[in-house]
Amino acid sequence: MKRLRVKSSTGEYDVMVGRGAWRTLRRLEGYTSIFVLTEPGLWECWGSKLARDAGWRLVRPLLVPAGEGSKSLAMAGRVASELSERGADRRSLLVAFGGGVVGDLGGFVASTYMRGIDYVQVPTTVLAQVDSAIGGKTAVNVRAMKNLVGTFYPPSRVVSEPAVLASLSARALQSGLYEVVKHAILSGPAFFQYLGTELAALRPSQTGRLEAIVTRAAQVKVDVVSRDEHESGLRRVLNLGHTYGHALEEVTGYRRFLHGEAVGWGMLLVTRLAELVGLLDPAEGERIAGLVWQAGPLPPIHNLSAEKVLGLLPRDKKAVGGMIHWVLPERIGKVRVTPDVPDTAVAAAFSDVQRGAWHE
Amino acid sequence: MKRLRVKSSTGEYDVMVGRGAWRTLRRLEGYTSIFVLTEPGLWECWGSKLARDAGWRLVRPLLVPAGEGSKSLAMAGRVASELSERGADRRSLLVAFGGGVVGDLGGFVASTYMRGIDYVQVPTTVLAQVDSAIGGKTAVNVRAMKNLVGTFYPPSRVVSEPAVLASLSARALQSGLYEVVKHAILSGPAFFQYLGTELAALRPSQTGRLEAIVTRAAQVKVDVVSRDEHESGLRRVLNLGHTYGHALEEVTGYRRFLHGEAVGWGMLLVTRLAELVGLLDPAEGERIAGLVWQAGPLPPIHNLSAEKVLGLLPRDKKAVGGMIHWVLPERIGKVRVTPDVPDTAVAAAFSDVQRGAWHE
Repeated sequence: MKRLRVKSSTGEYDVMVGRGAWRTLRRLEGYTSIFVLTEPGLWECWGSKLARDAGWRLVRPLLVPAGEGSKSLAMAGRVASELSERGADRRSLLVAFGGGVVGDLGGFVASTYMRGIDYVQVPTTVLAQVDSAIGGKTAVNVRAMKNLVGTFYPPSRVVSEPAVLASLSARALQSGLYEVVKHAILSGPAFFQYLGTELAALRPSQTGRLEAIVTRAAQVKVDVVSRDEHESGLRRVLNLGHTYGHALEEVTGYRRFLHGEAVGWGMLLVTRLAELVGLLDPAEGERIAGLVWQAGPLPPIHNLSAEKVLGLLPRDKKAVGGMIHWVLPERIGKVRVTPDVPDTAVAAAFSDVQRGAWHE
Repeated sequence: MKRLRVKSSTGEYDVMVGRGAWRTLRRLEGYTSIFVLTEPGLWECWGSKLARDAGWRLVRPLLVPAGEGSKSLAMAGRVASELSERGADRRSLLVAFGGGVVGDLGGFVASTYMRGIDYVQVPTTVLAQVDSAIGGKTAVNVRAMKNLVGTFYPPSRVVSEPAVLASLSARALQSGLYEVVKHAILSGPAFFQYLGTELAALRPSQTGRLEAIVTRAAQVKVDVVSRDEHESGLRRVLNLGHTYGHALEEVTGYRRFLHGEAVGWGMLLVTRLAELVGLLDPAEGERIAGLVWQAGPLPPIHNLSAEKVLGLLPRDKKAVGGMIHWVLPERIGKVRVTPDVPDTAVAAAFSDVQRGAWHE
């Protein structure tokens, strides 16, 4: 088990990653009550182990339906009122036990319930363990607008147990691996190469192998958010692949792609874009594309309307004053954040990747 | 015009109080766009003056219905989606132009829209000018639970123009004066005595006189929140009268009392309570009750069920682990925050005041 430290505006907190991590929850003290926010299926599989490891007796979970639909303001209100009815006060602890949806929703509820209570992230997907559970970004969707409302609110702790990843579907596991690939591109040649070797050999049941990958990928996120908690600059690099990615998710009504899959396409697209604007050497671009494809096949984009996808780009919430902050790879281990990209190149990159006319 | 300074975790900000204050909004620069959240009636009366003073052209307001019903999570979502549809980005400014409801709602939306944008409070009621607009507490109600969800999020500036108070109904004006009385009790003999003289002579049309009162009362709030932004201790003194007050509002479904009126009763009740537990000299208690009554008559409480009112007390959100932090006057200018009050005294105080058997 590894202990990583995140610096935040309200002090430091631990990210515990590895077998046995849930047992560190025993050290939580001084709360009047503990509430676990989770999804029914997950609670059924893992609830009793979590409660046993953490030493909680008589935990009655707050259940929300699985899926993105639960990441809404209305659901945040329902959870807050249930907390209130069950007597949660300002010294209660909320445990967000689940994937990205539960983590984002739970963080948002914790940050706003009685103007803020402590919470712990117990992520149960690869995506959440390496990315969304770390860094204190919380959010809910409003109508079709993803993450329109949220807060910066660091958790008291993040506790990632790799054993739980064995329950993921093959597709969900793979989707998380695209975020790992993103971290490898950001990190540099050492992690990039290591991940290439590991992905080639990885079988879903090998949680030991996954543990090592997840720990390294989590470290990348920890390093970035420790240096830029509120996304004033550096943290934007984490949006690598997300600009196109969000547009792909939105244009398909969040049905066709899992989030990581959309990010997978998004990374291919910005890699091509970086080549087109002369920032990235095509040989390096090919290596990046190769690692993305090594994570596995992606749902198709060939039958999407380029016009619609591109029309959705400026609505990315990282846009300031109508511009888009593109995150473009310059080489493995280095990206550039720039609004200075011609529309024609943005369209050409989409067209090239959509037609499969590049690095395939 | 006076300029007060509030210290907060994210730096200092100005509270401008006095005639001409809205003109200081001209100094706001560097925003991509400005959005005004307000109520239709208020905008009709004062919108053009505000826009003229502030130097804004073509301001199209975001309108929400007047009244507590607008202080909901659902309304926060509607405002956020309208902001998004109208192109608000992370460098947009939200102006909360209204009373407590618009201020609390606007602050909450600003604190969560795209994880936080800047906002300015332009309060238009006595209550908002002396209290709710200062200090960065934001909130919405969830079902019947008042302020269940909210944030600590300081405004960039508070701008209070007394001229606007001339449009208040006599009852709304008077309701705000109870909060001024609260600040006088907290402040000490000088302000207490001054307010007594002023209240005796005050006519609603005298905004000059009101300006002086409001400025002094705002200063009290500024001093308290500068020393304890997150209500870890000192700030709790501002809840003087609010524990009973909230119960009175809740038991009558928020229909019988304006907020300030409930606080007026609440102050009478805790004053009696402080006498009963031996904290407060009855002569001093009589002076406090006298100032409360000088603000004007209050809607009746004699026909409320004591059992129901008392039963609603522990749900006050200042309760930690089921206790209530009572704020009890010890003398004019000094209160004590304590959970250590026998239930029998709490009930006796309510009974005494309800029967009119005390200081009347």
